[in-house]
Amino acid sequence: MKYLEDYEIGSRASFGRYEVTREEVLEFASKYDPQPFHLSDEAAAQTYFGRISASGWHTCAMTMRMLVDNIEKEKSAGLGSPGLDELRWLKPVYPGDTLRVEAEIIDVRPSRSKPDMGSTHNRLTVFNQHDEPVMTMLSIGLVRRRPAA
Amino acid sequence: MKYLEDYEIGSRASFGRYEVTREEVLEFASKYDPQPFHLSDEAAAQTYFGRISASGWHTCAMTMRMLVDNIEKEKSAGLGSPGLDELRWLKPVYPGDTLRVEAEIIDVRPSRSKPDMGSTHNRLTVFNQHDEPVMTMLSIGLVRRRPAA
Repeated sequence: MKYLEDYEIGSRASFGRYEVTREEVLEFASKYDPQPFHLSDEAAAQTYFGRISASGWHTCAMTMRMLVDNIEKEKSAGLGSPGLDELRWLKPVYPGDTLRVEAEIIDVRPSRSKPDMGSTHNRLTVFNQHDEPVMTMLSIGLVRRRPAA
Repeated sequence: MKYLEDYEIGSRASFGRYEVTREEVLEFASKYDPQPFHLSDEAAAQTYFGRISASGWHTCAMTMRMLVDNIEKEKSAGLGSPGLDELRWLKPVYPGDTLRVEAEIIDVRPSRSKPDMGSTHNRLTVFNQHDEPVMTMLSIGLVRRRPAA
């Protein structure tokens, strides 16, 4: 199990591979973000996007899936997240793109009120297959502390 | 059509009604956030959540749906979003909850580089049916400026 004490400021990780399909982009957008430029190439052609692109929230969801798969692989003692800061959607994500994640730990803090947990602060960057950053955020994760032996 | 010039700092809006179902919570979590505490009451009982709760990203997606429905109703000249700041998940969202949104415009800025657009900065708070805030964020929206007459 990977506990708070096992996270080091400055350490980096690279993981994930998510193939973005047109079917999934349309399904997510029709449920949660039915703005015309996420649902129709004609409407998208009149905007900055040019053609159908994924909802920014869909990019977040696909990123979360890559994070969770990595948390499982690492056997991290994760306890969820209180939130995040500075989320930026930098470039459109299009059907046919393949996404991946780079993460850097920028802070590790024991909780002041709860002795059995703490938080890690992570700079996440999501790249497409052209190695262009499409999204960045500073995410906060709650992690269990190592139990006393 | 509602253009940048029609947005006023300090104005508030209250909108949306989203009924959170167990089926949808499980469907979203199994695709995008398959952490055990989002998929099983037994696993959730061992955590702060107590029972199955929605992925925080699902709460974002449901909130986006309420925002988009409101954008359409207002006929806002929206052009998408570059991102958001200070997203916080304050309380779990459970199946059976009903969500709604309160929004306050805290800044309106014409773009310095693009004369036909600008941005609105909005403080969003999502409440459950007990009027408890479950999520807050500062969102940024791009909006078209009113064309010269």
